[in-house]
Amino acid sequence: MSESVIAALSRLSIEPSTRDVLQHNASESQAGWSDALSSSASSNVPVEYRLLKTLVFKPKTAKSETPLPLMVVTDDKTQTSTSAIAAETKLKELRLAVPELLKSTLDATKDDVSPLSVTQENKSKVRVLLDKDIVTSGTTYAVHARSASETVFLTGEALQRYLESTQVQLDVVAFSTLQAPNAPAAKAKPEPKSKTVDAKIPEAELIGITVRKDLDFPEWYQQVLRKGDMLDYYDVSGCYILKPWSYFVWECIQRFFDDEIRKLGVQNCYFPMFVSSDVLEREKDHIEGFAPEVAWVTRAGKSELEKPVAIRPTSETVMYPYYARWIQSHRDLPLKLNQWNSVVRWEFKHPQPFLRTREFLWQEGHTAHLTKQEAADEVLDILGLYRRVYTDLLAIPVVPGVKSEKEKFAGGLYTTTVEGYIPTTGRGIQGGTSHCLGQNFSKMFDIAVQDPKATDETRGKPEGRLHVWQNSWGLSTRTIGVMVMVHGDDKGLVMPPRVSSKQVVLVPCGLGVKVSQEVKDAVNDTCKKVAAELVRNGVRAHADLRDNYNPGFKFNDWELRGVPLRLEIGPKDLDNASVMSVRRDTGAKQAMKLDSLKTAVPELLEQIQQDMYTRADEEFKAHRKVVTDWDLFTSTLNAKNHVIIPWCEEEECEDAIKDRSARTASSEEAQDERAPSMGAKSLCIPFDQEAYPAIQGKSCPQCGKPAKRWTMFGRSY
Amino acid sequence: MSESVIAALSRLSIEPSTRDVLQHNASESQAGWSDALSSSASSNVPVEYRLLKTLVFKPKTAKSETPLPLMVVTDDKTQTSTSAIAAETKLKELRLAVPELLKSTLDATKDDVSPLSVTQENKSKVRVLLDKDIVTSGTTYAVHARSASETVFLTGEALQRYLESTQVQLDVVAFSTLQAPNAPAAKAKPEPKSKTVDAKIPEAELIGITVRKDLDFPEWYQQVLRKGDMLDYYDVSGCYILKPWSYFVWECIQRFFDDEIRKLGVQNCYFPMFVSSDVLEREKDHIEGFAPEVAWVTRAGKSELEKPVAIRPTSETVMYPYYARWIQSHRDLPLKLNQWNSVVRWEFKHPQPFLRTREFLWQEGHTAHLTKQEAADEVLDILGLYRRVYTDLLAIPVVPGVKSEKEKFAGGLYTTTVEGYIPTTGRGIQGGTSHCLGQNFSKMFDIAVQDPKATDETRGKPEGRLHVWQNSWGLSTRTIGVMVMVHGDDKGLVMPPRVSSKQVVLVPCGLGVKVSQEVKDAVNDTCKKVAAELVRNGVRAHADLRDNYNPGFKFNDWELRGVPLRLEIGPKDLDNASVMSVRRDTGAKQAMKLDSLKTAVPELLEQIQQDMYTRADEEFKAHRKVVTDWDLFTSTLNAKNHVIIPWCEEEECEDAIKDRSARTASSEEAQDERAPSMGAKSLCIPFDQEAYPAIQGKSCPQCGKPAKRWTMFGRSY
Repeated sequence: MSESVIAALSRLSIEPSTRDVLQHNASESQAGWSDALSSSASSNVPVEYRLLKTLVFKPKTAKSETPLPLMVVTDDKTQTSTSAIAAETKLKELRLAVPELLKSTLDATKDDVSPLSVTQENKSKVRVLLDKDIVTSGTTYAVHARSASETVFLTGEALQRYLESTQVQLDVVAFSTLQAPNAPAAKAKPEPKSKTVDAKIPEAELIGITVRKDLDFPEWYQQVLRKGDMLDYYDVSGCYILKPWSYFVWECIQRFFDDEIRKLGVQNCYFPMFVSSDVLEREKDHIEGFAPEVAWVTRAGKSELEKPVAIRPTSETVMYPYYARWIQSHRDLPLKLNQWNSVVRWEFKHPQPFLRTREFLWQEGHTAHLTKQEAADEVLDILGLYRRVYTDLLAIPVVPGVKSEKEKFAGGLYTTTVEGYIPTTGRGIQGGTSHCLGQNFSKMFDIAVQDPKATDETRGKPEGRLHVWQNSWGLSTRTIGVMVMVHGDDKGLVMPPRVSSKQVVLVPCGLGVKVSQEVKDAVNDTCKKVAAELVRNGVRAHADLRDNYNPGFKFNDWELRGVPLRLEIGPKDLDNASVMSVRRDTGAKQAMKLDSLKTAVPELLEQIQQDMYTRADEEFKAHRKVVTDWDLFTSTLNAKNHVIIPWCEEEECEDAIKDRSARTASSEEAQDERAPSMGAKSLCIPFDQEAYPAIQGKSCPQCGKPAKRWTMFGRSY
Repeated sequence: MSESVIAALSRLSIEPSTRDVLQHNASESQAGWSDALSSSASSNVPVEYRLLKTLVFKPKTAKSETPLPLMVVTDDKTQTSTSAIAAETKLKELRLAVPELLKSTLDATKDDVSPLSVTQENKSKVRVLLDKDIVTSGTTYAVHARSASETVFLTGEALQRYLESTQVQLDVVAFSTLQAPNAPAAKAKPEPKSKTVDAKIPEAELIGITVRKDLDFPEWYQQVLRKGDMLDYYDVSGCYILKPWSYFVWECIQRFFDDEIRKLGVQNCYFPMFVSSDVLEREKDHIEGFAPEVAWVTRAGKSELEKPVAIRPTSETVMYPYYARWIQSHRDLPLKLNQWNSVVRWEFKHPQPFLRTREFLWQEGHTAHLTKQEAADEVLDILGLYRRVYTDLLAIPVVPGVKSEKEKFAGGLYTTTVEGYIPTTGRGIQGGTSHCLGQNFSKMFDIAVQDPKATDETRGKPEGRLHVWQNSWGLSTRTIGVMVMVHGDDKGLVMPPRVSSKQVVLVPCGLGVKVSQEVKDAVNDTCKKVAAELVRNGVRAHADLRDNYNPGFKFNDWELRGVPLRLEIGPKDLDNASVMSVRRDTGAKQAMKLDSLKTAVPELLEQIQQDMYTRADEEFKAHRKVVTDWDLFTSTLNAKNHVIIPWCEEEECEDAIKDRSARTASSEEAQDERAPSMGAKSLCIPFDQEAYPAIQGKSCPQCGKPAKRWTMFGRSY
């Protein structure tokens, strides 16, 4: 794709300022793009450049007509007033184009799209409005080479020549002269009306989060992760650096889970990251799902390998040939192994930190049992631990249940899951899965023992052999992304106390120039002493005595990182032998006696943990709606709900539900990410069926067949 | 290489039983080869086959003549009496050929060599004695395709035809008829005289170690690892499975080291495993050492990547571009990050479990400091922790010191190390390294801050900027291999109590058929109760109540795995309220009162830990020899010593030492691995110079220049 762009540019003697297309992390925002470029180690990035902004609008169009979208191309910082543009182009009711329209006209997403998306083939499906200011300025622009993960650097003049060469309908107008119909003509500056402007938080300082969580969630998520010091972008697309602030959360999860599975008799081990193709492809159903995403090592140093080796996308087929060797007798059962490792799935969809990354950290447990019952019990034991990771550590409610046949792990018998909920988008998110693989893999890999109940007739014969029952279960760093999305707010992260690397920060306050050095020292010393005392009592406390920042900066800094509790200590507090505590989750302030902190602070942290869970739980409960009438399905979904229906559990019905709930949505105008047009899929069949009316006599609202169980549907990540 | 073998075979219409050459782990022993084949998932392995044995002997040859080695080819299980062969071939004093001779005649190692090593080009440099029994038997043999990691399957008849086609001097004799000169002719079975036979432990049962540690160390090492349940071979060459028994050791090391570095202010994080080529190759000196071993991902699913990405061989160049961004002010210093991960170095040398593997687990710490002194202090703090991992956890003595310029980490300023010693081979082994990188990387990646001491003139100018001082330090799972090699004995592993997954095993004894069920129950119950009580007191105890094995089997089983302490409980012990304890390290038996175990067992475990260290320490001390006369250097080395000389510290001298100590050795006849012909290199310049006489006035024994410091030389892994 990008090569043909270069070819097209070359035909016009337009040389990109470098010969190469720069590869980087795809981003869902301009800020993310900018970060990806500035973090690039490539020498192809010019010293000075600006980002190009490309917006595609759909004008009001008669229902009988095919809409002709308008592409607007300008500097990232130039305000684009839709009313001014509408006036200039004589178009009406410009709305941002929905994904389907972008796809059908330019074969692009909103993140990919750029003037280079226009070609001689699709020139008649779009018209373009190019800002003359960027043509005359001589500035070099970063332009997506038809993909959000590829950038070339071009001048506005080159862009104009390229667009002209495609013969697309092109208008070149200086945006600085554009006027909204009712705006006073005196000042040529257009009104700030675009969505980006609306989402901005006016009072946010440079270091703070600059957009509102509810108005620009993708941008908010990226900012909160980076400014909250959770991660950094990386110069290999789809990969991210986990900084200590987020890695600590993972360490808490590891410590908890490791201790618990040890009680269940699970042992840790380590298998190699490489898999031979023979082994990888042994189980066909299973590998089908992973094959397109498998990364292959074909070369070492300068030598081509005789046979390429894959990097594991998961380890079933890696481990089970060895299980077949290690399990010789029923006395070798159960075999319960776990490993903490990273796996690689080279996804080509947009990566998203923690949620969809090409390498991710997880644990994967693989166990073998003599009986189905023993395997089934363990599946639930593990799922119970996953639930506790969410509820007890991350303060996040989840719904445990079983997956539909369509959504279960390929090659397994059944899949259990804990399902979470992101209130801002109303989308569901799979939290962790515990699979019963049945005997499918054990038959494939011949993992079998002599049946201890074999009779004299069957002993030693095939009938006397018993294939083991297997489970596999995994929990990944996705947990961290869910935690950020659920709890974070417009000021940044909000960390649940139990997984926060720092739980309490002490900030000396009120130490203006008029305060004596003696008092300053006393305040600082008190901060240090209190922190030390708290640490002795098992609280992760930190005194922020940096002398080059004022208290306001420090408040902001720790709020961005989501430290659960701030203790402010000033001269007056010393006089009263008290401190002022400020909760991160609610902002609630409360004076606390100095001599009570040793016990009061741990109690308050525990209260914060409980309150965070309770709030998230109430929010999720309020968005699980029982629906028995199909007409209400999509509208309930659109109101950011999960929808619980009495369901027939047929796969065709699941497909139809996805289809019909998608179609309904896409006929509306999608304003932004917040109303995604994707269809709903089944998230899980909750274990707790008692919470709903008796299923007998109910029929599936979509197809009318008899319902089997209440099932939770939703749009999901 | 292997393709030309196939080509040569095809010309003779010899089709290997499969078209493919089988790739597998190279092994240094026949048993390892057998394991590699039987663990192969390839369908190319025939159902029935036997291993081929290929030995190359050098006959007595006049000094003025070039020796013509004799290749002996037979079944792996056929005894090869050198005296019988000598009688048959009229050759004298057959000795196994040294590596140099194998290399110069057949371009092979003892592990690679096979009849397929003979070609038309080298046919005149060797003669072959082929066992007629394997030609007439029709058996299919596994034959190395000129490399220890490649096998083809051929009949003896095909081997004969191949050898004939090369026109090599070939004798085909039925070994079953061979007779040693003085052997009675009645029985055609040749005398067992070969080395392999000598190394065998006659009383070893099938599950035990079948060779003596001191006589066949490579084979012993492989057996002890597999039979002691430490690891399993894997079907990607150079990769191994770490089973729970060995992984637990690593978890102990992790827990200890993690707690200690946290006290030093180090935080854990995770960087992606992939590196772009641009970044990887930024530091030229550094990458030069790794480039030939870097594994490259070039494909994902069916798509070729536009730019291949490397898998990290180490993370300096991965991390430091980000350090440059994160470190903006001296207040951001020190930055101390660590990660527990795996790295990949695709070595083409023979892999060796734990010591040289293509993927291995380690931790790598990367820190940045404002001053050289602070960096230097940390280098030693970390090295001190590495020393404690060996001495305190693994009961292994090490010598801390600094590496010579030649042996230091490429691109760094200096390297400190802890150096261990393997008594059986007399070779040294690098235990862990802590590098001061100086400012080399920080200048390369521009990791700099405003000098806090900058004056008004220099502030904001290049002179006022200060490049940070960096360290990196790493410790790998190699630790586990060292532990096995140092402590293991002819019965299997000997685990230091502090890192043993099970520390105490209780075995019920004396429960013959005449013993009443009541007494049996009482004995078993006591085992259970004692184990539970020990567990409550922090001892990792296990009651082995398996009813399908007798006590002798269980003793053997736990001795193989090296459990530090066995407690035997029988009916008489119950009467006396006592148990019989047996130490794994010494075999010492001692009765212990039942009611004393809670305190006596932990004390005894501690004693075992101390004694294991003391014995290893005495052994190492006895093999560190001060030498000041060059004439004694190589002979001292050959007696399995490290040699400590007053050294000039010149690189040319180090090369000369390696050269001269190698040459001297290779002029002897190398009987086996135990007298390697490699030269000595400098292992470290010990910090403890006080242990040796004053260096003033001493001169280097090799070159005669003035000596600078006492330096430890040795052959090493």
